[in-house]
Amino acid sequence: MALNQNIVVIVGGVGGAKLALGLQMILPPEQLTVIVNTGDDFWHYGLRICPDIDTVLYTLSGRVDPVNGWGLAEDSRTVLQALTAYGEDTWFGLGDKDLATHLLRTQMLRDGHSLTEVIAHLAKVQAIQSAILPMTDEEVPTIVETAEYGELAFQEYFVKYRWQPTVTKLRYQNMEQASLNPTIISALHNADMILFGPSNPWLSIEPILSVPGLRDAILARDVPRVAVTPIVGGQAIKGPAAKLMAELGYDEVSAQSVAEHYGAIINGFVYDTSDAAFHIAGLHTARMDTIMKNNTDKARLAQQMLAWIKEWN
Amino acid sequence: MALNQNIVVIVGGVGGAKLALGLQMILPPEQLTVIVNTGDDFWHYGLRICPDIDTVLYTLSGRVDPVNGWGLAEDSRTVLQALTAYGEDTWFGLGDKDLATHLLRTQMLRDGHSLTEVIAHLAKVQAIQSAILPMTDEEVPTIVETAEYGELAFQEYFVKYRWQPTVTKLRYQNMEQASLNPTIISALHNADMILFGPSNPWLSIEPILSVPGLRDAILARDVPRVAVTPIVGGQAIKGPAAKLMAELGYDEVSAQSVAEHYGAIINGFVYDTSDAAFHIAGLHTARMDTIMKNNTDKARLAQQMLAWIKEWN
Repeated sequence: MALNQNIVVIVGGVGGAKLALGLQMILPPEQLTVIVNTGDDFWHYGLRICPDIDTVLYTLSGRVDPVNGWGLAEDSRTVLQALTAYGEDTWFGLGDKDLATHLLRTQMLRDGHSLTEVIAHLAKVQAIQSAILPMTDEEVPTIVETAEYGELAFQEYFVKYRWQPTVTKLRYQNMEQASLNPTIISALHNADMILFGPSNPWLSIEPILSVPGLRDAILARDVPRVAVTPIVGGQAIKGPAAKLMAELGYDEVSAQSVAEHYGAIINGFVYDTSDAAFHIAGLHTARMDTIMKNNTDKARLAQQMLAWIKEWN
Repeated sequence: MALNQNIVVIVGGVGGAKLALGLQMILPPEQLTVIVNTGDDFWHYGLRICPDIDTVLYTLSGRVDPVNGWGLAEDSRTVLQALTAYGEDTWFGLGDKDLATHLLRTQMLRDGHSLTEVIAHLAKVQAIQSAILPMTDEEVPTIVETAEYGELAFQEYFVKYRWQPTVTKLRYQNMEQASLNPTIISALHNADMILFGPSNPWLSIEPILSVPGLRDAILARDVPRVAVTPIVGGQAIKGPAAKLMAELGYDEVSAQSVAEHYGAIINGFVYDTSDAAFHIAGLHTARMDTIMKNNTDKARLAQQMLAWIKEWN
């Protein structure tokens, strides 16, 4: 087993967090760095909320709600119910304990700390030893253009409208002003392997790759760069990946289409045993059981991936 | 009884809110306007918190915690405990249901509403029919200069240090830029009577009277302008009023000293039956049981005041 190496895993929310947890279970903590999408971050009731980052924090700290895969286990919703009693349309789930995360983050940001510093602190107070890095410190909200409602802020599209509107275009607002954090440059530079979680390639991974300089920093590394499919049997394991592919004009909603979409950024691709084998020139591929229902699944997939990568690397 | 008239009552937190509730109990709701101190408002964990206004809102809606006299009855502190678990020094009490008030207020302020509009909404959703007006829409934080710690933000002085530091000076930051709200001008113009609650004259009433134009707008009204003492038997009913008077150099900590401090802004003064009678030239005075332990006390004091004022008016 190739355990003595630095691994960077690039993720969005629930699915990517599961793979990150699998890796954390089998790696020394100082060897794992998780780069997380912040395109879905937003301001809500005066608080800065980072849904993907919090899912990663809660998952890696073992505090995540096991049913939803996001939010905190055994959390209550007293505050949200009180907002509802005030006549508010409380479409975004805010747990009481979860709110402490948002309050502390907002306080630290208002005090002038960078998002990277804030997330490092939030990881520390949750006893997480892996490095969790927001893709950038700037606010770069993903804007979803829809046929039905025009432009929607990401969480409106994703949560308020439950990703039912038809997506016509995605854009990453303010991205040209986003800066690549030195900690990310350093993590990629020192990585012996760069992985992409089974996250949504367009909604979660693409914003990360759009941070100026980040795609090139990955391409510059002659190391295994391996993505895990979010599409199994033509369907998304969770969320709008399959629906979105169809809306964005893909003829075939499949793992192969995802691999082709990733293109040169990856040199390895893992897809599910339930899908038929395919080959793409120059791409290492492997079929594995990619469905992670429990922690054993997560550690097993992480182990299998590292073992397979060691084979061809 | 002179009930058919518009009454403005000027208050800080707990004590003033009690008198406002007494008035609300005996008046048609459209006749009562409460002008509230905002000098103790502050930003905390990214939220705008207005302690005095919330005490008034919670008291007039019947939701206030009956033990503390502030905060909500039967509230929980799940969020605050989660912040403590994150290593935070949670010196300011934030209830879970109470947080909904701060979240909604912050959202509305961030959306561009004035504090006056926000408080009107917060009053409406709590089914309060009296008009509750912040003294100004601008942020005018009261700064407390102390012998021990230098300058303290008000809530640090009042809550974090439990008003124990020695006060050397008070100032109302940014006050010269504060504007007098048209709703306040109108309320004072239409008032048949202007009352001052048994609030702290220096920490609660003085900030209100310092809003440019507000003192003059009161002095311009030839109507009963009556204050209730916060000092009984040389002691404060609640909080630092007596301690503060000594620190500010008053030789005598007494109801009479308070009346003298108010000066020309009042033409009537109510103090407690337990204190010896005194006379000040040109000032109507009355001794009443000013201690409000329950709602019956509050309504009785309000009734007695209005009856007495009618006598000499």
